[in-house]
Amino acid sequence: MTDSPFVPSRRTLLGGSLAAVAAAGLDSLSRTALAQAAGTAPAAPAAKPLPAFAAWKDHSVMIVHGANALETRRGALGSSIITPADRLYVRNNLPAPDAAILADRDAWMVQVEGVKHPRALSVKELKGMGLDTVAMVLQCSGNGRGMFPSKPSGSPWQVGAAGCVLWSGVPVRAVAEALGGPLAGLKYMTGTGGEKLPEGIDPRTLVVERSVPLEAMGDALLAWEMNGAPISLAHGGPLRLIVPGYTGVNNIKYIKRLAFTAEQSEAAIQQHGYRMTAPGQKSAATDPSVWEMGVKSWINSPLPDHGTLAAGPCVVQGVAFGGLHAVKRVEVSVDDGKTWQEARLVGPDLGRYAWRQFALPVKLPAGSHTLLSRAEDSKGNRQPEMRVENAHGYGNTSWRDHGVKVMVA
Amino acid sequence: MTDSPFVPSRRTLLGGSLAAVAAAGLDSLSRTALAQAAGTAPAAPAAKPLPAFAAWKDHSVMIVHGANALETRRGALGSSIITPADRLYVRNNLPAPDAAILADRDAWMVQVEGVKHPRALSVKELKGMGLDTVAMVLQCSGNGRGMFPSKPSGSPWQVGAAGCVLWSGVPVRAVAEALGGPLAGLKYMTGTGGEKLPEGIDPRTLVVERSVPLEAMGDALLAWEMNGAPISLAHGGPLRLIVPGYTGVNNIKYIKRLAFTAEQSEAAIQQHGYRMTAPGQKSAATDPSVWEMGVKSWINSPLPDHGTLAAGPCVVQGVAFGGLHAVKRVEVSVDDGKTWQEARLVGPDLGRYAWRQFALPVKLPAGSHTLLSRAEDSKGNRQPEMRVENAHGYGNTSWRDHGVKVMVA
Repeated sequence: MTDSPFVPSRRTLLGGSLAAVAAAGLDSLSRTALAQAAGTAPAAPAAKPLPAFAAWKDHSVMIVHGANALETRRGALGSSIITPADRLYVRNNLPAPDAAILADRDAWMVQVEGVKHPRALSVKELKGMGLDTVAMVLQCSGNGRGMFPSKPSGSPWQVGAAGCVLWSGVPVRAVAEALGGPLAGLKYMTGTGGEKLPEGIDPRTLVVERSVPLEAMGDALLAWEMNGAPISLAHGGPLRLIVPGYTGVNNIKYIKRLAFTAEQSEAAIQQHGYRMTAPGQKSAATDPSVWEMGVKSWINSPLPDHGTLAAGPCVVQGVAFGGLHAVKRVEVSVDDGKTWQEARLVGPDLGRYAWRQFALPVKLPAGSHTLLSRAEDSKGNRQPEMRVENAHGYGNTSWRDHGVKVMVA
Repeated sequence: MTDSPFVPSRRTLLGGSLAAVAAAGLDSLSRTALAQAAGTAPAAPAAKPLPAFAAWKDHSVMIVHGANALETRRGALGSSIITPADRLYVRNNLPAPDAAILADRDAWMVQVEGVKHPRALSVKELKGMGLDTVAMVLQCSGNGRGMFPSKPSGSPWQVGAAGCVLWSGVPVRAVAEALGGPLAGLKYMTGTGGEKLPEGIDPRTLVVERSVPLEAMGDALLAWEMNGAPISLAHGGPLRLIVPGYTGVNNIKYIKRLAFTAEQSEAAIQQHGYRMTAPGQKSAATDPSVWEMGVKSWINSPLPDHGTLAAGPCVVQGVAFGGLHAVKRVEVSVDDGKTWQEARLVGPDLGRYAWRQFALPVKLPAGSHTLLSRAEDSKGNRQPEMRVENAHGYGNTSWRDHGVKVMVA
């Protein structure tokens, strides 16, 4: 089992083309899993440099789980709301396409279907159709998986498979309207990634193709810019589908097809992947899909890796977000949950899909302290104390799991 | 005359220590000016690589005016509000300190004076005193100087000596309060930069020390973070004074002293530098100081360097800001000012000191078109048609100057 949580069939695993895919850049966890499934011993773990397509990241703040799985260190998420590109996590389900696709960004084509007048559009055409910018939390479905005692397979993310970024592009609804609007009765918006698939196997077993409910179209973008620069290959350039409030996998990189559909995609990643499956069970299309994010917060400072802290004034700070809904408030406990104080939300409000920074000045006496945070969104949804146990370690929003223990001298 | 517009005395110019300063990194324009003033011919212009302290910038989008003057290309300012660090302009008035000052950021000290209990504070202490984040336009006082037909000396900036960035740090008012508050009767907030000065000359001739009116303290920060990462050396780390709404020079890098004062600094850069001086005159302390920014906007797309455009739909886009006041609206003309249409403000509003992106969908027929934008702030201040002529080319907000001419096939 891999971080792309569909389970390849035995036949697929043993196909020669899959070895080529693995060699081309599946992350080391995937390679290990594949080797185990194929009955061969995994290679000894190598040192973990940044993969070539993300070599421009700040290595000093990244945890390299594998060639397609990079996490931001908890202490490096900063307090300025936006996560800079060179600190943002990376998760690809397949090796990225060749960088040559960025040579002429405006020439990239996306086929739009399920509308009255379906056709292919270039990025250049899209740029003439409208412009909007959205700030949103981009978060891997499995962020927080590393806190599950059940140790589900997949990258053991702590908090850093998440960031808050700005995307600019054309609203999907403007594109749909320009093509006559979605056909009646369609229920999903389905995006297909432009990754190269190995020959000779059913594309549905590997293609990165995800469906989200049609209402997610409302604030969705076809984006060509992230944080003020053309989108890098690592983050899905030249064109990415942005679905604010939905987990990372639903934000299709290198999008080559956008379809309004009656049914969800037949791809394995949709049918069996990214489902909230009971512990010990195999995923099925009847399990709930991992779509919207839940309300969540965590503390980024102080942290145990700051060493023993000096007694005295200290600002407890972190991030909080509500998925589809704005964060309304955040409470902090410095006594392992016995008492709670409301923190202040700091800095500009970038809209309901962005995270807020929170801060609470405290004085910590000498000793050991467990610091906790819990958020509530504008609809009254509260971050839960306990995680929802599930087979693949998705959706961990537990405030208990996200606590930190610090020592004060 | 140089971009740091105080005029060195003949004695200073001929002093050996100045040659050392020049060799250590004054920009090429300054070097030229110094050579001219000293009666020697400037060296032939060399190729312009990025200077070492900004070698991490994206060279492909930067115009290198000199070792301490880098401009962002107009087409590279993006449409996502925030300017990424690797695209942000750089302007230093003196060579930056040695990068060793970043080795232990928390140990950097700033002396706070003009308060009831003056003392030196470390960055570590400041971090325990409070946290706020502000988004603001950082803009060189001389941005737009390159559009003055009078060709004032100094870097011939077009629009790209500006960006919108996020700063995190402690509010200056919290620091002042913690030290008993500013003494009665003081009128200015004066910051002193930590650049190394050459020996043997009066420090006032070179020190980067600026005073702003005391009321600017209201939203000022002592900041350690920019755009979610510790402030780089090029942008004033480990600690920078941030004075939202004021031009770049007032935001003191490497700040080592923050004083509330009865008078403005005696430094040349305050007394004679950065003053709105009548054309052909020498600057005097009686000329108005370059402090708050005025309302301004410009178009970033389409641009002439996009080549001849295809006829058809096009989104005219750019940025607008109001200095101390939020932008209320932006109008765009595609017929050289004959008619105007209101543009839409795009994306999240990051507060009154940030810029807004604006966008207007248009259809341009074949031919040549002069595109213009003009902004109005929340107080009803309007971007003027004409620049204010002045000796050093400061404060160019002319909408006429900022127009662009594009060809449509």
